[in-house]
Amino acid sequence: MSTPGTRIRELIVTPIAFRDPPLLNSNGVHEPLALRVVLQLVLEDGTVGLGESPGGEARLERLLAASKVVTGMDVFDTTAISAAIDAALLPTVPSSHERGWATSAVEVACLDAQGRLLGRPVSDLLGGRVRDTVPFAAYLFYKWAEHPALDGRPAVGDDWGEALDPAGIVEQARLMRQRYGFRSFKLKGGVFPPDEEIAAIRALAEAFPGQPLRLDPNTAWTVGTSTYVARELDGVLEYLEDPTATIPGMAEVAKGSPLPLATNMCVIAWEHLRPAVEQSAVQVLLTDHHYWGGLRRTRELAAVCEAFGLALSMHSNSHLGISLAAMTHVAAAIPNLDHSCDTHYPWNSADDVIVPGALELRDGEVEVPTGPGLGVELDRDALDRLHRLYLDSGVRNRDDTGYMRRFRPGYERRLPRW
Amino acid sequence: MSTPGTRIRELIVTPIAFRDPPLLNSNGVHEPLALRVVLQLVLEDGTVGLGESPGGEARLERLLAASKVVTGMDVFDTTAISAAIDAALLPTVPSSHERGWATSAVEVACLDAQGRLLGRPVSDLLGGRVRDTVPFAAYLFYKWAEHPALDGRPAVGDDWGEALDPAGIVEQARLMRQRYGFRSFKLKGGVFPPDEEIAAIRALAEAFPGQPLRLDPNTAWTVGTSTYVARELDGVLEYLEDPTATIPGMAEVAKGSPLPLATNMCVIAWEHLRPAVEQSAVQVLLTDHHYWGGLRRTRELAAVCEAFGLALSMHSNSHLGISLAAMTHVAAAIPNLDHSCDTHYPWNSADDVIVPGALELRDGEVEVPTGPGLGVELDRDALDRLHRLYLDSGVRNRDDTGYMRRFRPGYERRLPRW
Repeated sequence: MSTPGTRIRELIVTPIAFRDPPLLNSNGVHEPLALRVVLQLVLEDGTVGLGESPGGEARLERLLAASKVVTGMDVFDTTAISAAIDAALLPTVPSSHERGWATSAVEVACLDAQGRLLGRPVSDLLGGRVRDTVPFAAYLFYKWAEHPALDGRPAVGDDWGEALDPAGIVEQARLMRQRYGFRSFKLKGGVFPPDEEIAAIRALAEAFPGQPLRLDPNTAWTVGTSTYVARELDGVLEYLEDPTATIPGMAEVAKGSPLPLATNMCVIAWEHLRPAVEQSAVQVLLTDHHYWGGLRRTRELAAVCEAFGLALSMHSNSHLGISLAAMTHVAAAIPNLDHSCDTHYPWNSADDVIVPGALELRDGEVEVPTGPGLGVELDRDALDRLHRLYLDSGVRNRDDTGYMRRFRPGYERRLPRW
Repeated sequence: MSTPGTRIRELIVTPIAFRDPPLLNSNGVHEPLALRVVLQLVLEDGTVGLGESPGGEARLERLLAASKVVTGMDVFDTTAISAAIDAALLPTVPSSHERGWATSAVEVACLDAQGRLLGRPVSDLLGGRVRDTVPFAAYLFYKWAEHPALDGRPAVGDDWGEALDPAGIVEQARLMRQRYGFRSFKLKGGVFPPDEEIAAIRALAEAFPGQPLRLDPNTAWTVGTSTYVARELDGVLEYLEDPTATIPGMAEVAKGSPLPLATNMCVIAWEHLRPAVEQSAVQVLLTDHHYWGGLRRTRELAAVCEAFGLALSMHSNSHLGISLAAMTHVAAAIPNLDHSCDTHYPWNSADDVIVPGALELRDGEVEVPTGPGLGVELDRDALDRLHRLYLDSGVRNRDDTGYMRRFRPGYERRLPRW
């Protein structure tokens, strides 16, 4: 229903940068600054809805294109808004997954604005919450103790320390549990030879008996290696995430794996669901509202998983509080959330763009905000500061591999590596 | 977000009866009175949300059970409300499809109440409308000129007249078009030998060239007969609906059918989707919010259809205006509505329970109401009258076969018949 007050006056797109520790993965190592984009969707009545998207020049450009499309549209017409953005991007962005990042961030901002207008939390717009708190997993990373000195910049450490072997990972997990109360753990693998990562998982299992564990090497392994690891960790992991690339590759692993396989890499757009189901490639889908089309589409995706017998978990990228709020609302509304959600939040929350206090990780869970919309407020000083950091830094795209090469010139991104 | 004003104080369940013409189908003939149940969901602040469900003793009883469950729950917690009703019915109602009729009607009443509270149309709660009017198909029936005199009651005619052959069906279609502007046509078949119904469809194709046509014999045919009809009507029908029973049966027909097959009979619960897709049993799904779990679930079902390449249409039972409003809102919100929706409304609208004027079939379409909630108001006098009619009539369950036997004692329900 288009009424003047609910039309979109403006979508303000603000790229930001924030500090990130030297976390290792199959592509290299996280740079000192991570990029994100904050959306402020301003309605004609002055209501502002917030959204948060991964950064990088291409995604930033698409969000700027989206901002032109949505002006004048009604904030309640989220389906039409998504379709309009998708249509505008189609000629230059052939990947529906890539277009999805833009439509998703805008949809979240629309729902936040709707909730503020209506005085209801976003979870209520998704069918109401079926849980008052959402469980998250500790996201463990192999990491260096510090970002090494570089280009005249001194080394930058953090309060997590080094983790390069099983003992280091267990210590990190203890810190995660101590600080946030996590009761499930995910290790980002694909960094060291598989046997070392198997040893780290076994050490975690010993240190935290009965706690769900996952391992995610980001397609660093061949089918054979994946199957080997799956068999080694049978009964230890709750699932093995993206051991190898592509739907057929995962299907091949699934044939020999006693463990459920999970993905957020080979099933990342609606058109992947059918082949994934037909090939029985995965047993757990890690959804992510940032590219599946937003919060309502994530509920729809959960229904697909329900209908086709896929278990549901949730993926995370480096993110701040607006995304955490959105993840929490949608996870609270989904009945068939079978596993705790991933989150990078502990690694990045020191630089948040929201006013502190709305979201807290306690006992490994986040209480679902009950205020209007997402229930978080933008910290405008923080936004300004992080935007200036973005401008001054000159960092425009994520490059884990290039950054790694500054320290290990022979380093190559190679997938599979083992 | 539970706030006192949005809690459910009471769910008022009112069975009603209304006049129905002698429409023929594969089970027999419609009785003079059709049954329906009207729901009034009353919130603590006095807001009332409306719902409408098929009648019959079993369904009425389940809605009465549901009314006990929902009292005190928050109207925004539709997912939790559905789960609570489902759990309460589970011990005595093993069919998820049958439980779905109860949860669905309540969900619609909740969304109507939400929309009224928030001042937004229900379509806005479903992502906004992507079309301002929803196309419906003329629902053609073989029929008698009148309900015959019976038990001292005189014969009861109507202004549609008899339709027992191709000429009668074409004349009925002309009336339908003249009165409501329909531009697509569905014939309820399974009444006469298949060649007669093929002839009726061909007569319609000649009378209305280029207009979409469908035929639905309600599983009156064997696999062989179904395949024969599909081949005969290749290029004439847009789809053939439920020619034969069961998912394997339809899959067998699909192998030899040049026409897309549609169903609202073998895929009627979430657990049917996977086998239907795996067996390629149907190409078109007729959704129906009355048993798929409500309006939000229907949007989710549409997403399943999108992901798995099923086209989408909409099923109808004899219904009144509350259901038509709900059908219109959800159809307006679904992007991938591929075919016009079915509706019995022209056959029953004279006895409506809503205040006239909110919904009109013009050019075969219904404009989506833009007022709060479903956008229709209960006509309390009409409700009282139809409830008294229910009480006085003594009719408690639909029995098309038994009614037919009153006039043709040898009549047997036999599926397949041909």
